Amino acid sequence: MAKEKKLVEDITPMSEDFAQWYTDVVKQAELMRYSSVKGCMMILPNGYAIWENIQKNLDAMFKETGVENVYMPMFIPESLLNREKDHVEGFAPECAWVTHGGAEELEERLCVRPTSETLFCELYSDIVQSYRDLPKLYNQWCSVVRWEKTTRPFLRSSEFLWQEGHTIHATAEEAQERTIQMLNVYADFCEQYLAIPMIKGRKTDKEKFAGAEATFTIEALMHDGKALQSGTSHNFGDGFAKAFDMTYTDKNNQLQFVHQTSWGLSTRTIGAVIMVHGDDSGLVLPPRIAPTQVMVIPIAQHKEGVLDKAGEVLEAVKKAGIRAKIDKTDKSPGWKFSEQEIQGIPTRIEIGPKDIEAGQVVVVRRDTREKTIVPIDEIAEKLPKILKTMQAEMLERARAHRDAHTYVAKTYDEFKDIIENKPGFVKAMWCGDQACELKIKEDTTATSRCMPFEQENLSDVCVCCGKPAKTMVYWGKAY
Amino acid sequence: MAKEKKLVEDITPMSEDFAQWYTDVVKQAELMRYSSVKGCMMILPNGYAIWENIQKNLDAMFKETGVENVYMPMFIPESLLNREKDHVEGFAPECAWVTHGGAEELEERLCVRPTSETLFCELYSDIVQSYRDLPKLYNQWCSVVRWEKTTRPFLRSSEFLWQEGHTIHATAEEAQERTIQMLNVYADFCEQYLAIPMIKGRKTDKEKFAGAEATFTIEALMHDGKALQSGTSHNFGDGFAKAFDMTYTDKNNQLQFVHQTSWGLSTRTIGAVIMVHGDDSGLVLPPRIAPTQVMVIPIAQHKEGVLDKAGEVLEAVKKAGIRAKIDKTDKSPGWKFSEQEIQGIPTRIEIGPKDIEAGQVVVVRRDTREKTIVPIDEIAEKLPKILKTMQAEMLERARAHRDAHTYVAKTYDEFKDIIENKPGFVKAMWCGDQACELKIKEDTTATSRCMPFEQENLSDVCVCCGKPAKTMVYWGKAY
Repeated sequence: MAKEKKLVEDITPMSEDFAQWYTDVVKQAELMRYSSVKGCMMILPNGYAIWENIQKNLDAMFKETGVENVYMPMFIPESLLNREKDHVEGFAPECAWVTHGGAEELEERLCVRPTSETLFCELYSDIVQSYRDLPKLYNQWCSVVRWEKTTRPFLRSSEFLWQEGHTIHATAEEAQERTIQMLNVYADFCEQYLAIPMIKGRKTDKEKFAGAEATFTIEALMHDGKALQSGTSHNFGDGFAKAFDMTYTDKNNQLQFVHQTSWGLSTRTIGAVIMVHGDDSGLVLPPRIAPTQVMVIPIAQHKEGVLDKAGEVLEAVKKAGIRAKIDKTDKSPGWKFSEQEIQGIPTRIEIGPKDIEAGQVVVVRRDTREKTIVPIDEIAEKLPKILKTMQAEMLERARAHRDAHTYVAKTYDEFKDIIENKPGFVKAMWCGDQACELKIKEDTTATSRCMPFEQENLSDVCVCCGKPAKTMVYWGKAY
Repeated sequence: MAKEKKLVEDITPMSEDFAQWYTDVVKQAELMRYSSVKGCMMILPNGYAIWENIQKNLDAMFKETGVENVYMPMFIPESLLNREKDHVEGFAPECAWVTHGGAEELEERLCVRPTSETLFCELYSDIVQSYRDLPKLYNQWCSVVRWEKTTRPFLRSSEFLWQEGHTIHATAEEAQERTIQMLNVYADFCEQYLAIPMIKGRKTDKEKFAGAEATFTIEALMHDGKALQSGTSHNFGDGFAKAFDMTYTDKNNQLQFVHQTSWGLSTRTIGAVIMVHGDDSGLVLPPRIAPTQVMVIPIAQHKEGVLDKAGEVLEAVKKAGIRAKIDKTDKSPGWKFSEQEIQGIPTRIEIGPKDIEAGQVVVVRRDTREKTIVPIDEIAEKLPKILKTMQAEMLERARAHRDAHTYVAKTYDEFKDIIENKPGFVKAMWCGDQACELKIKEDTTATSRCMPFEQENLSDVCVCCGKPAKTMVYWGKAY
C-alpha cells in the first residue's frame, strides 16, 4: 500500500469520534476491506491471522472437552428450515435465497445457512438410534450469512466467520451442563487469550435465540462504554428434537427425545479486541493472540554489522518460541515504529550501532510504551517475561476499565441519568416483566445484556415499575 | 451407529464392483453422508479429521513459501463474474444464484463462488499501486459451489472444500516460477503425506482452466486404473489483469500489468486416498495423514491388570508423539479389530493377559496385516519405526501399481486395445491437434491427462493421425 495510507495522523482520536476511530484503525491496520457485495468483508492477512490464532486455540479447548469437527452443507432447503416454528420466524427475514442452479430454476429454494441447527437435526435424527450413540458433540468452523441492512467491520456483516457447536444428550441435565461448560470455555478463552473480562449470565426471554429454551451469554464492555455480546450458548431442551423427531432408545428400551445445545463465537471477537485494547496510535494486540509478537527494527541498518546482529536477535527470540519478524525495508526507523504500533504488534526490539556496542537492545511495549534495556544475550529469556506481564496487565486494565464504568441504579431517574451521561454497564433490579424491558429500551435505547450468574440484591423492587424484583440485570447500550 | 452397519461383510469386494466398493467404504468408515440438498455432503468426524490434517500440513508448506491466508466473500456479483469472457463462459452454467435477501429481490443477482479469481482481481486492483507492493501471495481455505448433475462422495459434489491460492507478480517469469513452485508443493505433499505418486505435467488447451494461459496438473492412478486429477496450478499471464485493470508502477515509473497465478487442491484428495490405498476390509490411511495412528485394543479386558497395562501402553506411545486411542468398549476383540480396519487406522496394538505375562504386545499393520511382537518397554521406540516403514512402503506399492498399469501405445489399434482391456495410463505421442484429442475421446472415452514434464520420444508420429508428433501425452479414463 502507498505509504501515505499508513500515517498515524490518519487515525481520528478516540475521544473525538469513537466510531470513526474504529473504522480508521480497521483500515490502517489493514485488517479488512469491504467488497463490491454490500456488507460482505474481505478479511486481509493481518485480520485473518488473528482469526487463525483464535481458531487454533479455541479449537484445542473444544477438543479437550470431547468435541469433534464436521462440515455441513452451506444450503438449507426451505422446507427443512420451516420445521421449527420459532426458528424460522427468527431467521427467514435475513436469509439469502438461492433460486437457480446454472440456468435452471430450483424446485425448492435454498437458504444460505444463517446457522445450522436444522441441518444438524437432520443428521442426528438419522444417525442416532440408541443411548449408546449419545452424546454427539459436533462443531463446525464456517461462514454464515444474515442479510443485514447496516453493517460495521467485524461487528455486523452480511457474511461472517464463526464456529457453531451442536450437541445432543440423553438427559436435560447433561444438556444444561454442556451449555454452561461451553459458556465457561468461551469466557476462559476470552480472558486468557484476548485479555477481555466477561460477564457471564442468562439472556432474558426477549433476547434469547430463536428456538432456544434458554440462551446464555458472555458480555464485554468496550472502551466507549458500550456492551458487546461476544459469544452465546443455547439450551434447546427437546424443542427441536420434537420438531425433527430426534429420538433414541434408552436402557429400558423406551423411546426418548434427545436434549440439545448449540453455541457460537464469531469474528466479532476481533472487533472486541480492537475496541477494548486499541488506542489513538492504532491496534494493540494481546501477546497470546498476536500473529506477530515482536518486530525487530534495526536502526541505521546501513552501518556494518547492524543487520547481522538484528538477525541474530531475531533467531534467538524465535528459538524461544516467540512469533517474531524483522523489518529490513528501507523505510526510516520512525516509520517502522509507527507501522508496528498501528498494527498492534505487542513489542518491538530496537537495535542500532550504539546498542550493539553496549551489548544491549531496547524492548518497547506497545500498550504502555515502557522501554526496557535488555542485554543481547538475555533477550531470549527476558522477552517472554515481558510478553507475559503485558498479557496479564492488559486483562487487569480492561477489568479496571469495566469496573470503573459499571454503575448501580436503584431508581428509574438514576437509571436514565446513568444511561444518558455515563457510558457503561448499569446494574439494576428487574421484576421479570417484559413490559419493563420494552419500556427501558424505548426510553433509553439500553437493552438487558444478561441476568448474571453472580447475583446481587441491590434493592427489593424493579428499577422500572417498582414492583417486587426477581433478579439483577446488567443493562447497557450495545453493539 | 447400529452395530450391523459396521460389518465388513457389508463392503462389496473391489474386484466385483469397484464403484460400489468405494461407496461402501465411504459409508462404513463413516466419512460422509449425503444431505437433503442434492449433491451436498455432510462430512462426518472421521472424514473431516483427515481434511484437518491435510489442511494443517499443506498450509504449513504454503506459509514456508511466503503465502498468507485471507478470507474473501462467498458471493460474486454477476457483473464482476462477467468481466473475463472465458472465465464466465466456463463457470456460469454451474453457478448457484442468490436472487433474494430476506423478502427483497436483489438488484443484481449474486453467484455463490465456484472459484474466486474475480474477487481477488477486484481486491488486487484496489490495493496494488507500485512494484513495492508485489508480489501478493494470498490463499484461502473455503467451500465452493458448482452445480453438478451427477455426484460422487469426495470426487464430485455440488459443494466441496478446498484451498485456492491467488498470486500476482511483476513479471511473467516470476508468475511462471510460482505456478510450477506450487505444483511441486502439491506433488511433494501428496507423495510425502498421502503416499500417492503423481505425474506432473501441463494440460492441453482443451483441458485447461477457463481464463488460464496454461494449466498444470498432478495426476494419480487409482486402484481400478482410472486417473484422478488431484490438484491444478494455473498461469493466467496478464489476461485477468487486462480485464480487471490490475496495474502497477514499475521502477522506471511506467505503468505495467501484473502477472497472475492460481492453484487449488480439494477434498477430492480424500477420494484419492481411499481409491489408491483401500482394500476389501475398508479404508487404509497413510500414517502421516491418519487422524489416529494406532488403536490400542485390550484382549480379555475384564481380567485384572489388562486395562491398566493397556492404558500405560497408550500413554507411552502418545508420549512418543503418536496419535493414539484405546478401545475400551464392551465389544468383542474381533469386532474392535474389524472397526479399526474399516476405518483404516494404520496400526493396532493387541494386548491381553498372556502378552502382559510375557512383557510384550502385538503390533498389527493395517496394510500388510504383518504382526510384530514388541517388548512393552520398547513400544514407544519401535512403533514410530513401524509407522515410518509403512508410510514408505505404501508409497512404493502405489508407485509399483501405477508403473505396472502404465502402457505405451505406438499405433491407434494398440491404443484402443489398451484403453478397452487394460485399465491404466497410456503414454502415446500427439501431434498437438485438438481434432485428434476429440477423436480419441469419442472413440475410447479416454482423455488427455497431461503433457508430462518428463517427456519420452516413443515414436515420431501422432498415435491418432500419424502426422509428425510434437509431444508425449498421458491418456486415460478419468474420474
